[in-house]
Amino acid sequence: MRTRPLKVALLGCGVVGSEVARIMTTHADDLAARIGAPVELAGVAVRRPSKVREGIDPELITTDATALVKRGDIDVVVEVIGGVEPARTLITTAFEHGASVVSANKALLAQDGDALHAAAEEHGQDLYYEAAVAGAIPLIRPLRESLAGDKVNRVLGIVNGTTNFILDKMDTSGAGYSEALDEATALGYAEADPTADVEGFDAAAKAAILAGIAFHTRVRLDDVYREGMTEVTAADFASAKRMGCTIKLLAICERAADGESVTARVHPAMIPLSHPLASVRGAYNAVFVEAEAAGQLMFYGPGAGGSPTASAVLGDLVAVCRNRLNDATGPGDSAYTQLPVSPMGDVVTRYHISLDVADKPGVLAQVATVFAEHGVSIDTVRQQGKDGEASLVVVTHRAPDAALNGTVEALRKLDTVRGVASIMRVEGE
Amino acid sequence: MRTRPLKVALLGCGVVGSEVARIMTTHADDLAARIGAPVELAGVAVRRPSKVREGIDPELITTDATALVKRGDIDVVVEVIGGVEPARTLITTAFEHGASVVSANKALLAQDGDALHAAAEEHGQDLYYEAAVAGAIPLIRPLRESLAGDKVNRVLGIVNGTTNFILDKMDTSGAGYSEALDEATALGYAEADPTADVEGFDAAAKAAILAGIAFHTRVRLDDVYREGMTEVTAADFASAKRMGCTIKLLAICERAADGESVTARVHPAMIPLSHPLASVRGAYNAVFVEAEAAGQLMFYGPGAGGSPTASAVLGDLVAVCRNRLNDATGPGDSAYTQLPVSPMGDVVTRYHISLDVADKPGVLAQVATVFAEHGVSIDTVRQQGKDGEASLVVVTHRAPDAALNGTVEALRKLDTVRGVASIMRVEGE
Repeated sequence: MRTRPLKVALLGCGVVGSEVARIMTTHADDLAARIGAPVELAGVAVRRPSKVREGIDPELITTDATALVKRGDIDVVVEVIGGVEPARTLITTAFEHGASVVSANKALLAQDGDALHAAAEEHGQDLYYEAAVAGAIPLIRPLRESLAGDKVNRVLGIVNGTTNFILDKMDTSGAGYSEALDEATALGYAEADPTADVEGFDAAAKAAILAGIAFHTRVRLDDVYREGMTEVTAADFASAKRMGCTIKLLAICERAADGESVTARVHPAMIPLSHPLASVRGAYNAVFVEAEAAGQLMFYGPGAGGSPTASAVLGDLVAVCRNRLNDATGPGDSAYTQLPVSPMGDVVTRYHISLDVADKPGVLAQVATVFAEHGVSIDTVRQQGKDGEASLVVVTHRAPDAALNGTVEALRKLDTVRGVASIMRVEGE
Repeated sequence: MRTRPLKVALLGCGVVGSEVARIMTTHADDLAARIGAPVELAGVAVRRPSKVREGIDPELITTDATALVKRGDIDVVVEVIGGVEPARTLITTAFEHGASVVSANKALLAQDGDALHAAAEEHGQDLYYEAAVAGAIPLIRPLRESLAGDKVNRVLGIVNGTTNFILDKMDTSGAGYSEALDEATALGYAEADPTADVEGFDAAAKAAILAGIAFHTRVRLDDVYREGMTEVTAADFASAKRMGCTIKLLAICERAADGESVTARVHPAMIPLSHPLASVRGAYNAVFVEAEAAGQLMFYGPGAGGSPTASAVLGDLVAVCRNRLNDATGPGDSAYTQLPVSPMGDVVTRYHISLDVADKPGVLAQVATVFAEHGVSIDTVRQQGKDGEASLVVVTHRAPDAALNGTVEALRKLDTVRGVASIMRVEGE
């Protein structure tokens, strides 16, 4: 074994960073044996240097992250600051000064993955980011390496623990969205401002990263269609149950049937209770992958938290250190297919539509005509009426989202349709 | 991209080999893009050269596997023959002649993994074998690489599709073992001689491989405790249901509580219906991994079949080819902990014991005394009696297997115990 240690600079020492530092110390011998050389924490960049950080030599603490990544003797920079800046500039600077990078930064990777990969390649460095998607669950490496000889056609995942906790709560307790969100906040599963989670921004960033890797193309955050889950109601769950379904916020990346384009989207959807993703409880994450030869795979585990995220970061750190000892780099960017990303309107899916309608003869015929005019085939219709009011629940067959959307717009204009109570896509069948 | 192709020799062209050859041809451009150089099938060793093999140039077919691996211009040998010999000699010869190896051979890896790893290292070659355990499910790579910065404490898996199909059938239809086996045979899930599957030999080989990788030590096939599932009855399933459990044939690899030893075993066991492994249906495989930092992870997918296994082989082929272009090797053997493998008697588990007893006063007291004398604490007892005959179902708390075993031996000697109807371990709680 090489005795000269590999030097690691840690950028950020919050929930994840402090756990990375702790494990690097407590499991130093194991890490050295697995890498083939010891690893040494050479510096820790923080914002608040006065905070007591147990187990970290105070001499290592600095507020000057830029100087740390520019030192020139750093082998690997571990970036767990999050957010676009200053992370982006620090990572680029690290490459320029001869360091490889392990990052957990989904927002940055989703927005600037291509530029960062290009910078890593230009300087002969590694850029690894297993922790950016689904915490501890090995997902980037399986997609990028284990399935490198296969053709992935679909990735369908629960990639945000906060929203899964809320939806699971609504499902099991009958609670409404606000009540379930309050509980998630009280238990620390939701942040004070839950927007990034409940509006699907976090999941959309992960969908962009997953789609890019799965289809070997470039998918940016802006390419991902996004709907949050704040409008999911207890009534939607009741409807889902009647269909043998539950509701999950899903990140869905698909290759078009002709193979010539891809799509990526995040929205709440009904999925059958028999689908493996339906039984993913609480804040757990799970990602379902369909590949041509492998068939259907699922990866399940904790999607967030200090220790799980640190596990993923350290797995990458070991890999990058090994590469370094081999004077090699791991599999880099692989966006060679350059498949275009189609808009949401091209996505083929199913709708579950709940309408409030007038309780009089001929309404169903009118509604059915609208569907037919838009080329959308109806799978099932359920009518319920009382006191001149009635509801009509329509589940469609698969059709382009644009056609489904156009159908709903036309339905809203019918005199006999008093309102569209809910629209939800049906997936996983 | 390099234009000179990497040369691949395929040993074996059955269900898996023919699929590997097919995908290498149909997806040649994708493989080249992902590797950074084209790969070329340079020879295919078969036993029956006269068989028509669609899509494979007849010029490539040979019956002389030894000559093929000795050619000297081969970059990677893909071994999908199975069995110990001639596979072992061919793989060793391949290393000696400058080729790396991708193998799907669980029996060989479980028996001679250390010698093969040593030979690979001696000659600076790679030995990859993702396909040896759980078919297409990425498992070896996640354990060996993604969790390289973590400490795995437990691996609990359904790693044999045939037995899971049979047990699932018994569970859902109430069928007996023979009836379910007949159906598995008729549908092609069980071989004409199902011994390797139903007696747990196949799962034991996989447990040996998984335990070695998970705990960075050496676990041989002979170290794995093994019980088949041919004696599981419909009555056992009924008992399991009463406890809110089902029955699975599990491969279980554990680190002892003191961290100083490991165990590996294969046997049928009751697991709670709430456990993620309980809902693994049909011939699917799933492996549950508990790691110190990552927490609980699960990997799920098809555990066998030509295409899924080929997917795993090709993922390894891409990785090995990339290493070769980098003039490097991937993570090799990592048995540095040299943790001893403890015998089954040291395993701490729970028993579900069903006894046929005399229906008279004092029997329960006698039975309870035997448990107490062996230091085994009872969790629950259920008595059912009629016409002078009675049954007693005892579920214990956790205790060393030796103590549980000793308890059962002593129970057999009681006059009031007419027979031990079934003993089954309870896991996953």
